[in-house]
Amino acid sequence: MASIRSVLALKSPAKLALSARSMSSHPLAGLLGKLNHVAIATPDLKKSSDFYKNLGAKVSEAVPQPEHGVYTVFVELPNSKIELLHPFGEKSPIQAFLNKNKDGGMHHICIEVRDIQEAVSAVRSKGIRTLGEKTKIGAHGKHVMFLHPKDCSAPKAIFQLKL
Amino acid sequence: MASIRSVLALKSPAKLALSARSMSSHPLAGLLGKLNHVAIATPDLKKSSDFYKNLGAKVSEAVPQPEHGVYTVFVELPNSKIELLHPFGEKSPIQAFLNKNKDGGMHHICIEVRDIQEAVSAVRSKGIRTLGEKTKIGAHGKHVMFLHPKDCSAPKAIFQLKL
Repeated sequence: MASIRSVLALKSPAKLALSARSMSSHPLAGLLGKLNHVAIATPDLKKSSDFYKNLGAKVSEAVPQPEHGVYTVFVELPNSKIELLHPFGEKSPIQAFLNKNKDGGMHHICIEVRDIQEAVSAVRSKGIRTLGEKTKIGAHGKHVMFLHPKDCSAPKAIFQLKL
Repeated sequence: MASIRSVLALKSPAKLALSARSMSSHPLAGLLGKLNHVAIATPDLKKSSDFYKNLGAKVSEAVPQPEHGVYTVFVELPNSKIELLHPFGEKSPIQAFLNKNKDGGMHHICIEVRDIQEAVSAVRSKGIRTLGEKTKIGAHGKHVMFLHPKDCSAPKAIFQLKL
């Protein structure tokens, strides 16, 4: 079964956050910002990249991210991105994912948050565990934090927080 | 295994399409528009809805869509949406999906296109089969067309075209 993951990525979408906040009285209104990207693990990075290229999309080259054990390819859409993930190295977390999901599948959803520490505190206050105590630096130099997939019923999901 | 699907939705993002076109000489540059939504099938619609509500997101009520055999809930983010899907009725396609993916998972990605017929012709010219000959009317009254998941290596994906 796919271990579906969602990502919270913090990228200071301050204006939008304030706008959303004014629409709601929820204490956390505005915490969740833009959908930064949807990450899809694929067993064939070239084939998946070519699929989007052939339909005219702007698709990046494959970039190795040794510290994360992945190759990444970004498909740029006008308002968001699709991140294609493929294993890099021996202990890639993507390889473990593909072992369970041979055709690939959604690995996580990246949602921007306005403040990484606020977001970490907020999700923990809801009983959602984080994967690790501290944020890490993600593919674009932003702080990220994954949440525990078993605590995210959206469905079963990991949230990663990204600054 | 998850049958991952991607959706092309046509919603006349003309300005962005032109902007993208000017960046590339690919004959289909600009065809793929905004990421309209990511659709996630869930076995527990309330739990999944509450997950986002508890984090302050703007979440719609569950709306039955008898003609599609689904309940839909939309989570609104500043730039895109997450669509939660749950079976409605006896022959729901989402039930078949959940039978294979008990924890739920990504059902499709919805990408807007500038012209539904242009998009249908374009994908067919690439050897990508459509599910059905003609477009249907989707949840928001727009024309939609799913593509055959076995022909979409992004990974294995259905594309739906939506006007």
